[in-house]
Amino acid sequence: MPFFSQSVQHIRSSEIRDLMKLATRPDIISFAGGMPNNDLFPVAEVDDIILNMDPEIKKVAFQYGPTPGYPPLLETLKQYLKTKGLPVDTHHLMITTGSLQAINILAMEFIDPGDLVLTENPSFIGGIAVFKAFQAHIKGVPLQHDGIDLKALEEILETEQPKLLYIIPNFHNPAGIIYSKEKRVKLLELLKDKNILLLEDDAYNELYFSEAAHELTQPVMSMNQYNIPMVYTGSFSKILGPGFRLGWMLAPPDIYEKAQIIKQGIDACSPNFTQVIANAFMQKGYLEPYLNKIRKEYAKRKQLMQNALETYMPEEVTWTEPEGGFYFWLTLPQYMNATDILKDSVKKGAVFVTGKTFDPEAKHNNYIRLAFSNMNINDIDKGIQIISNAIKKNMLAYS
Amino acid sequence: MPFFSQSVQHIRSSEIRDLMKLATRPDIISFAGGMPNNDLFPVAEVDDIILNMDPEIKKVAFQYGPTPGYPPLLETLKQYLKTKGLPVDTHHLMITTGSLQAINILAMEFIDPGDLVLTENPSFIGGIAVFKAFQAHIKGVPLQHDGIDLKALEEILETEQPKLLYIIPNFHNPAGIIYSKEKRVKLLELLKDKNILLLEDDAYNELYFSEAAHELTQPVMSMNQYNIPMVYTGSFSKILGPGFRLGWMLAPPDIYEKAQIIKQGIDACSPNFTQVIANAFMQKGYLEPYLNKIRKEYAKRKQLMQNALETYMPEEVTWTEPEGGFYFWLTLPQYMNATDILKDSVKKGAVFVTGKTFDPEAKHNNYIRLAFSNMNINDIDKGIQIISNAIKKNMLAYS
Repeated sequence: MPFFSQSVQHIRSSEIRDLMKLATRPDIISFAGGMPNNDLFPVAEVDDIILNMDPEIKKVAFQYGPTPGYPPLLETLKQYLKTKGLPVDTHHLMITTGSLQAINILAMEFIDPGDLVLTENPSFIGGIAVFKAFQAHIKGVPLQHDGIDLKALEEILETEQPKLLYIIPNFHNPAGIIYSKEKRVKLLELLKDKNILLLEDDAYNELYFSEAAHELTQPVMSMNQYNIPMVYTGSFSKILGPGFRLGWMLAPPDIYEKAQIIKQGIDACSPNFTQVIANAFMQKGYLEPYLNKIRKEYAKRKQLMQNALETYMPEEVTWTEPEGGFYFWLTLPQYMNATDILKDSVKKGAVFVTGKTFDPEAKHNNYIRLAFSNMNINDIDKGIQIISNAIKKNMLAYS
Repeated sequence: MPFFSQSVQHIRSSEIRDLMKLATRPDIISFAGGMPNNDLFPVAEVDDIILNMDPEIKKVAFQYGPTPGYPPLLETLKQYLKTKGLPVDTHHLMITTGSLQAINILAMEFIDPGDLVLTENPSFIGGIAVFKAFQAHIKGVPLQHDGIDLKALEEILETEQPKLLYIIPNFHNPAGIIYSKEKRVKLLELLKDKNILLLEDDAYNELYFSEAAHELTQPVMSMNQYNIPMVYTGSFSKILGPGFRLGWMLAPPDIYEKAQIIKQGIDACSPNFTQVIANAFMQKGYLEPYLNKIRKEYAKRKQLMQNALETYMPEEVTWTEPEGGFYFWLTLPQYMNATDILKDSVKKGAVFVTGKTFDPEAKHNNYIRLAFSNMNINDIDKGIQIISNAIKKNMLAYS
């Protein structure tokens, strides 16, 4: 049986599938979905773009485009990434159907069955699924409040040679944390001359809640002075809309060259129709005001959830207050099983995603991910109360 | 080195790349590009759809969607495929980013390195590239004017057990032919109880030039009374626009089940933004009038090219007059090398794609593919004259 066919079995536990069904029931308060808010999409701006689009560009939107992306969008995006200090002049940019496709392409390019891949623990489930599908041996490196555990990473590197390290330094999914500047610098120092591909997933870069957090978001790739092999991925999903299916990959020429041949074989090109709109969205100056608006809205939601957590959670439950992004990541007492909490919460009307979903080794389950991005804002307080009660009940049963 | 990374080397010869660069030069008459005509896209209809779209549906367009596709589009498409006699009640439908992604997903699901895959010879370069990327051993079965050579196929099946047979029965790319009804029936009889997955690629189904051709387009899957494992793929690229990156796959439940898990890992979902528009395009009744319009236009172009070929080509060059689709496929005398003809034609101002590009074994090169779909209609006569002259000159050199 083809390896891909075998390994996809791991990708989606039936638990998640059932949960996702529940999460769409109108009577359930769902902290499960890690997606932008439906009511915040820049619908009027995109209407305006389409209404005023040059007829010749409209035709281009309907046609096949070059595999690496719609050239004007590549140019616009390059200018944008340059403002983040990214090496757009020495590296090549490619548009992908979401950053998940970029991770897939890299896995196709680099991973042989049995290769060691390091991820943070916890990590993005989509990334874990890709590495599993390509039959990598995955090891999770613990995540701390300020980034990856460098000591644990160093210990692994003493005896093993991973092919790739996958990190999400900004407003981590699911952990909600941001890497400190020191961690970024030291991580690069540690990876110097180790011949490990560093894959930086920066999907949440723009969603900071303060200027202090903004300053921290400087991409690791922009600090790479040691010529460590690196690929940087980003996405329009959080700054325009996931329905556009547009992300990107910034890579050194040799990695890019193979990546675009792989992309050509996979789907020929990303949708020109949405690329043309995304380009106009940036060109017309709609991006920055839109980001200002959604940063405020997500910050407000974060604050409401922080308040509710402080009010209702027992002191044994801990978390790092997020400085951006979509997620709170709760650490429960070690003896607790988040699946039990989930079962009880569901009965009372609230769902979330359990910790082990994000553990590459699917072991640790005393964690809970709560997304505050796309739920009814008025339900936050009630929902947190339900989950807190389920946790307290569970604690009582063990005491 | 990962197998995918190794095998992508084969995908695109530098010849094609150079050719594609030439094909976009404004002073060159290009018969190379197999894409719809830029001036025929239903721009006004899509403008109308977006202008009048329900605000709630607009929000959905920006968001992630279910992996198998936007549910209303799946429903609309099911009704449409039902009119073609396809088994939409027993099979499952999935939206993909073009039918090329559908072929990729099936390759991931079915192909182990070294597996035998049969394609027609010639065959769609994108399909060949996918099977090569997954390290299949590919054998080409000759194509005749009325479909696959059944005798040649039967001979292969006497000694070998292919995993998959890939066919394009309607308005073949590149061969331009359509399978006769008899060939379709006999092919199914031959595959009965053979346990070979039959993959039917029907991207050009709607582009017939006459009612007689229309009748022939009945999908092979709709005649599958022997329960032969089959997957049917189609595309919005030729009936709406490739820039939407939308295709589909109709598959039995077991194949579908794994395919959607693979799709989930690849890119989560196809673009909702373009799916919402495609659904409205069909729902509002825009599809049929649009098809009537483009069928007429492509038939006109076909006729001009047929006339020019009859006028200028030496009698040693033969072809089957296409009854639909985008392509003429010329057979040159056996001793001739299409690459030589191409080099000479380019100098005089016309390009096309050489035959060996479409040969899974990259051997036979006494063929030429001429696409009449997206070139300047006024250039057809002049372009064919240039190519005919190059052929005549080459014949003289050999006589």
